[in-house]
Amino acid sequence: MMKGKMVESLEAAVKASGLKDGMTFSCHHHLRNGDKVMNLVCRTLENMGFRDLTLNATSIHNVHEPVAGQIERGVIRRIISPYIGGAPGRAISEGKLKDTAVFCTHGARPSDLEQGKTHIDVAFIAAPAADCMGNFSGKYGPAACGSMGYIFSDAVCAHKVVVITDHLMEYPLSDFSVSEVYVDYVVEVDSIGDPAGIVSSTTSLTRDPVALRIADYASRAIHASGLLKDGFAFQTGAGGASLAAAAYLREIMKEEKIRGSYCTGGITRYMVEMQHEGLFESLLDVQCFDLQAVEDLRVNPGHREISCSHYASPTAKSCTVDSLDVAILGATEIDTSFNVNVHTNSKGIIMGGSGGHSDAAQGAKMAMVAAPLIRARLPLICQRVNCISTPGTTIDVLVTQYGMAVNPARGDLAERFRAAKLPVFDINDLKMQAEELSGVPNRVKPAGRTVAEVYYRDGSLLDRIAGV
Amino acid sequence: MMKGKMVESLEAAVKASGLKDGMTFSCHHHLRNGDKVMNLVCRTLENMGFRDLTLNATSIHNVHEPVAGQIERGVIRRIISPYIGGAPGRAISEGKLKDTAVFCTHGARPSDLEQGKTHIDVAFIAAPAADCMGNFSGKYGPAACGSMGYIFSDAVCAHKVVVITDHLMEYPLSDFSVSEVYVDYVVEVDSIGDPAGIVSSTTSLTRDPVALRIADYASRAIHASGLLKDGFAFQTGAGGASLAAAAYLREIMKEEKIRGSYCTGGITRYMVEMQHEGLFESLLDVQCFDLQAVEDLRVNPGHREISCSHYASPTAKSCTVDSLDVAILGATEIDTSFNVNVHTNSKGIIMGGSGGHSDAAQGAKMAMVAAPLIRARLPLICQRVNCISTPGTTIDVLVTQYGMAVNPARGDLAERFRAAKLPVFDINDLKMQAEELSGVPNRVKPAGRTVAEVYYRDGSLLDRIAGV
Repeated sequence: MMKGKMVESLEAAVKASGLKDGMTFSCHHHLRNGDKVMNLVCRTLENMGFRDLTLNATSIHNVHEPVAGQIERGVIRRIISPYIGGAPGRAISEGKLKDTAVFCTHGARPSDLEQGKTHIDVAFIAAPAADCMGNFSGKYGPAACGSMGYIFSDAVCAHKVVVITDHLMEYPLSDFSVSEVYVDYVVEVDSIGDPAGIVSSTTSLTRDPVALRIADYASRAIHASGLLKDGFAFQTGAGGASLAAAAYLREIMKEEKIRGSYCTGGITRYMVEMQHEGLFESLLDVQCFDLQAVEDLRVNPGHREISCSHYASPTAKSCTVDSLDVAILGATEIDTSFNVNVHTNSKGIIMGGSGGHSDAAQGAKMAMVAAPLIRARLPLICQRVNCISTPGTTIDVLVTQYGMAVNPARGDLAERFRAAKLPVFDINDLKMQAEELSGVPNRVKPAGRTVAEVYYRDGSLLDRIAGV
Repeated sequence: MMKGKMVESLEAAVKASGLKDGMTFSCHHHLRNGDKVMNLVCRTLENMGFRDLTLNATSIHNVHEPVAGQIERGVIRRIISPYIGGAPGRAISEGKLKDTAVFCTHGARPSDLEQGKTHIDVAFIAAPAADCMGNFSGKYGPAACGSMGYIFSDAVCAHKVVVITDHLMEYPLSDFSVSEVYVDYVVEVDSIGDPAGIVSSTTSLTRDPVALRIADYASRAIHASGLLKDGFAFQTGAGGASLAAAAYLREIMKEEKIRGSYCTGGITRYMVEMQHEGLFESLLDVQCFDLQAVEDLRVNPGHREISCSHYASPTAKSCTVDSLDVAILGATEIDTSFNVNVHTNSKGIIMGGSGGHSDAAQGAKMAMVAAPLIRARLPLICQRVNCISTPGTTIDVLVTQYGMAVNPARGDLAERFRAAKLPVFDINDLKMQAEELSGVPNRVKPAGRTVAEVYYRDGSLLDRIAGV
């Protein structure tokens, strides 16, 4: 086998890359909670003595707990990401990150890179399969993750690109996600991750009666909206109610012989099955949420890997979220102006981020939040969310197990829902109903220094998150 | 069907694009001599009253004869292209282009665009299939051309992108060559071209005994070079001797059970058949040279469309020509320093250009020119070529029907060829032999003003072409 761009270790690649203290590196999350590479990279950089680095990550998950250590010890002083969960999120809330964290959106991240608003000195790419010249793919190898859409912009824009793989294939890997054109170094390691960790617990279909009730209302609301017709374009998350809504929608679409156009965003086996049944023409996949989706991407020509810019970039000449009919989204809090918080938990601690939430909300003709009215004895609806992740102006409908509320700007939808005999309430009334059931919570809002700033997809500052 | 980015006419798209006198537009040649779009665009721009435009084209062919009119009438004052054939080439030689024409290479063209050395204001893309948001593909439709590799950089880098199609498909065209991310306007026309014109006469296998003799020597030289082994990577053109050499190579590879790695560049049915027979792992296709290749690209996962940067960009971190073992190339003239001319004919008139000639010559471990020693009573070999298209330092072997000459820098190859009992001569002796057969020609070199400059893939000036 030719040597190509192979270097003997990650350390050697880092040295060759010219990375210096204070520079920016990037990692990605296609292996989700099975990813071993972000931890490996951060540990390696710490062992090599680096300080004050910026980590620009496509998403940070529970599995990245050790990264909290690199934050605390000053190896990483700044983080840019659309999502920061687990211990790293908590460490930021606790003020352990030297600089303010920057939350972007899935769509804004590649846009900022392509427009030169952000810069990556070295991108570290966990590649399920690669060849010695750096052609890489998410479709093959023991840790196949399917789509690698989130990493396209890093590969194209980063000054140096290091591909890390545990499955070296013969050159040329012609079914590449990203080609050798952009790659500087290739490193072989024992394992880049555990594919079982790709599947988050939320990608299994729920039996929770609350979620099923929400899903029932959600699917009926979509049906009533007038948007569910041939050419229907759809995004839904991997949460219990969202997936169940898709399952109900599937039955309606079958019954009424509706042939949808595409599903986009993260793809689950439910989307795959619906596409196989002819309910959708194609799947435009920026990320596989389970192993069935991974397998399907490998063999199904109607299931296509797309870049994150193609998914949601606000500066693309168009992207898939722009043509969505309906997006079903989650929320940890929603306020009476329909602003949604998916960044902080009830105690104001960072536990997530927008991901593509606000991208899809702005793009879709109908953006629907589907969530239980009460969760862990806390009402979903409040006067003002602790953190604005997605502006209420872009949320059209809230669906809960007790009924739905429609953004006053969308009187047309409220009318359609009422005509379909769906339980439509004023959002203030739903809020009161929740408070009657669980009491008015004693809302905690941290009051420390600003530890994170939340930027909207257009680059404007949406909110600041205070530390505890 | 949704309206998306559809505009009602090419004129409307031009108006919306903001094109102004003196700006640069681009066209491409994937439909080769079947293309109708470059002529349509140039005629439309003339009818709209445009003047002094720069045409940056991926290649200009015989079918583009009318463009000579737009040159003469000052609609086009400058041309940048890797290849200018037919009437436009002649018009340039006759001094009818106001500015000096700029010859680049297939690899340098996208590199220059990506590096910002050249700029395209409006790219006009003839798309065999497209949807209303601009996702487009060369694989479908009545004028399917297969790979659209040459146009990727235009789509990504041009300020405005107009997609012109005669086969509008439902959104989203998920099997896109280039995605909607880059497209501003979509125009539907009756016909973008005649797919029969994709097939140049040279893509049929020759019965010419001279070409067959050359091919025999060429294939035996490749065999003797030591490069023909498992992992062999190969590029050959669509010329008679080149294709015949591939046919002979096919037999050797079968006999010796050699499993090659890839073929790149323009792909013909011979390459397709060899890949099907397991003689090559994959086809990395920047351009389909015949309809069998077009069909194969549609259905064969081992046959992959690649961008022109991936094919040959000198500023890519690597590209497919970098890993070539052998490239078989043509020549209209070669001199005793192995410099090759593919730009001008025996009268010094522009009739072609490098295309990927010098890209492949520099990248390949063995760059072989295969051409008849005498053509139309003119010897192939001269003291100094009329125009240096490819520097002799990058040409390793010349193969003619009377034997071969090896670049003195490659004594290793000469040794191997002699060991294999191949007829190896000093290039000066081959030159004398030709002149004995056909006489010493009275070489014509035009002496007018410089009408074109020839740039190498690294951006350095290789030569100037004088007008007649």
